[in-house]
Amino acid sequence: MTSQQPNARIILQQCMSAKLMVQPAIEDEEAKYVHTSRGVVVYVCFLQGANTDTVEKMAKAALNTKLSSAEDGKLVSVLDLPGDVLIIPQATLGGNLKGKVMQYHRNIHKEEGEKLYRAFVDLCTQTVQGHDKVKQCSVKAGTYGNRQVFSTETNGPFTHLIEF
Amino acid sequence: MTSQQPNARIILQQCMSAKLMVQPAIEDEEAKYVHTSRGVVVYVCFLQGANTDTVEKMAKAALNTKLSSAEDGKLVSVLDLPGDVLIIPQATLGGNLKGKVMQYHRNIHKEEGEKLYRAFVDLCTQTVQGHDKVKQCSVKAGTYGNRQVFSTETNGPFTHLIEF
Repeated sequence: MTSQQPNARIILQQCMSAKLMVQPAIEDEEAKYVHTSRGVVVYVCFLQGANTDTVEKMAKAALNTKLSSAEDGKLVSVLDLPGDVLIIPQATLGGNLKGKVMQYHRNIHKEEGEKLYRAFVDLCTQTVQGHDKVKQCSVKAGTYGNRQVFSTETNGPFTHLIEF
Repeated sequence: MTSQQPNARIILQQCMSAKLMVQPAIEDEEAKYVHTSRGVVVYVCFLQGANTDTVEKMAKAALNTKLSSAEDGKLVSVLDLPGDVLIIPQATLGGNLKGKVMQYHRNIHKEEGEKLYRAFVDLCTQTVQGHDKVKQCSVKAGTYGNRQVFSTETNGPFTHLIEF
């Protein structure tokens, strides 16, 4: 069997809580963080060939795939849980192992990646706002191009990879 | 371009500390955890076709790939950092998205997966013990087939996917 090279990758992990730095400390100002409660963490990486169609497929998959255990044990989407969504840009996910180092030849150009990342965050935010359980869901997102200082607690990450 | 279906996947994340449950609470006994300090978290999934050769490649990649920032900013392997290694079995990583659910048709049979997982943990442990910085590294591992209750703190996970 063969498969095409992907245009984007996401990693999805379930969490009970998560905290991500979105602005490092500067002079007298403390670092700023976003916090999420139970829900999903979405690591996002765009590769060459990604476009707005890719972004739509990614948002749909991240929000609608049945990965979260509801109280009755059934798997539901994070929207239906309802849970929070923490989006983390993660360009390293585009790497390929070559010898003892990772190479990033297929990663998208940084500016294009940032544009698509913002489109992804916006689309996830809009989708959650249009959902009937919107009051119980929140979407938070990391800042592109920064070090993702991050902590999380989970009762089982149930890590999933989805390629687009 | 085309690529073959992989026999195994690992996800590598840098951490400052991590904690993983290895035995749930039973009656009067509290749950048991393993702890690691700065180093790498390795999520492991075996697919059909994986064998001991695959395990060797995986251990080599997990321990020798230069993903960790040393004090001078240079990337070094977790062995050379020297850092800790926390191995987490993660069968969900073998899933493929089909509609709104993940399917696991290509995952290895559970018993075979457990055998390879143990071989991987043993090989990582032996490799660390044979390394000259052994006293500063420790390998800890989650238990196969259990819910991975887990928490971590990181200054940047720098998530990497490697397929074998």
